Amino acid sequence: MKSEGDGRTSPTECTLRVRYAETDQMGVAYHGNYLVWFEVGRSDYCRRHGFSYQEMEQEGECYLVVAEVRCRYLIPLRYDTEFIVRTRIDELKRRTVTFGYELLDMTGEIRYAEGETLHVVTDRQGKPRSFPDRYRSLLGQ
Amino acid sequence: MKSEGDGRTSPTECTLRVRYAETDQMGVAYHGNYLVWFEVGRSDYCRRHGFSYQEMEQEGECYLVVAEVRCRYLIPLRYDTEFIVRTRIDELKRRTVTFGYELLDMTGEIRYAEGETLHVVTDRQGKPRSFPDRYRSLLGQ
Amino acid sequence: MKSEGDGRTSPTECTLRVRYAETDQMGVAYHGNYLVWFEVGRSDYCRRHGFSYQEMEQEGECYLVVAEVRCRYLIPLRYDTEFIVRTRIDELKRRTVTFGYELLDMTGEIRYAEGETLHVVTDRQGKPRSFPDRYRSLLGQ
Amino acid sequence: MKSEGDGRTSPTECTLRVRYAETDQMGVAYHGNYLVWFEVGRSDYCRRHGFSYQEMEQEGECYLVVAEVRCRYLIPLRYDTEFIVRTRIDELKRRTVTFGYELLDMTGEIRYAEGETLHVVTDRQGKPRSFPDRYRSLLGQ
Repeated sequence: MKSEGDGRTSPTECTLRVRYAETDQMGVAYHGNYLVWFEVGRSDYCRRHGFSYQEMEQEGECYLVVAEVRCRYLIPLRYDTEFIVRTRIDELKRRTVTFGYELLDMTGEIRYAEGETLHVVTDRQGKPRSFPDRYRSLLGQ
Repeated sequence: MKSEGDGRTSPTECTLRVRYAETDQMGVAYHGNYLVWFEVGRSDYCRRHGFSYQEMEQEGECYLVVAEVRCRYLIPLRYDTEFIVRTRIDELKRRTVTFGYELLDMTGEIRYAEGETLHVVTDRQGKPRSFPDRYRSLLGQ
Repeated sequence: MKSEGDGRTSPTECTLRVRYAETDQMGVAYHGNYLVWFEVGRSDYCRRHGFSYQEMEQEGECYLVVAEVRCRYLIPLRYDTEFIVRTRIDELKRRTVTFGYELLDMTGEIRYAEGETLHVVTDRQGKPRSFPDRYRSLLGQ
Repeated sequence: MKSEGDGRTSPTECTLRVRYAETDQMGVAYHGNYLVWFEVGRSDYCRRHGFSYQEMEQEGECYLVVAEVRCRYLIPLRYDTEFIVRTRIDELKRRTVTFGYELLDMTGEIRYAEGETLHVVTDRQGKPRSFPDRYRSLLGQ
């Protein structure tokens, strides 16, 4: 477990496969879908750290609103290709959190893409708030 | 204006253009997107009949939950093609409504696709209810 | 193995989870995504019957163009819910194939939705053709 | 008209409306869709500068592969809200182009989001190439 001062946590990994719906007429995965895959990685990260994102929204009244995204596309992904979404936390503050992502081939050696998303913690009405302790400490493990 | 017993209303028309994101590796629009275009046609139908679907949800506490869809694909649509969504009501009952759709070329003579969606009227919690009079009579005009 | 005259094949099953991107402001999965999940079930069906849909397109020059879809929505699916896509073939002819789908909870006892897709077999240019023997016999097993 | 050395071109503007399919259970537009709206802005930019992106792909054998995206989300967009996509070119080189985007309310005074996409010019096989003169000069106008 990394300390909070340090910021970076151990990554989690889940596996996805490119859907036909996610391809475009260039014959590769449409670039917008990478943000969806990041979100799947983020949900998976929460689950493996002991809570569901759904529960945090409903019981914790805590929403992670996306404030900024970046993605760098290195090698195109094609229909039916299986790949790994590796998700980590790059920075965890009282009112914001930055997730980092890598899309990798199944050997973990080839990177298809990488990116980051910055989130602001808000309540149900979208007003900024600070992390509930429970979720902040689970996220940072 | 058609009578309610009759069911069919005069259609409304709006124009869309196929987005790159909506194509797939076959080089045509992915079939799942047609349901989204039907939804755009439905929103437009409501607007042209005097109310926004958003307002009906929020002020009328009236939701049109999709219970069934059908779509027949006649001619593939390609990236950047402009087309017409023609929307009508096929049947308007106390607790359900059926919309019908045609996707047409800009002359209105070539049909790309056609379909129907059946909706159940519900409240915010998803419980079936009957149409508020205001919306039922606006829809049926 | 069912005979071709019979039509219906043994279903295959794969598991999906509702993505945040797939929800809408009603708080449930948007109805258009069900067609994407059917497609994932179809790809999985092909894979479990000995070939990839990708290979059939590229080596077999055989495309399954969607001609008609139907979906009945029984119980709404919510974010993060895991569910089963059960896929079977309802009818396999020389130039068309009809797939049938059920979306089920993880016990297999509750049905969220069911539907069918009718496909026409075409070549790369979209011209109707008949199934290559190899794929027709693998599909029908 | 801006000179090429300068880089920045006059922006073009088109209008979109948030679709129901584009909302998520937070009740606002899902962040991944902003990249799709940027793409619609880009297509529109090309069209207003004298060519279709489709034509550039097919006749010019020139593809603008997305290499990097960034988006900053300022104010959430809600279902049915009409907004402006303002698109400009930030940098135009021999082998790359950077587009910049703003999503604005209909008065043009409130910014919902802003972002950039960096594209590499490639041929049909995805190999880097330089811009055909025709498209480079039309884009830079």
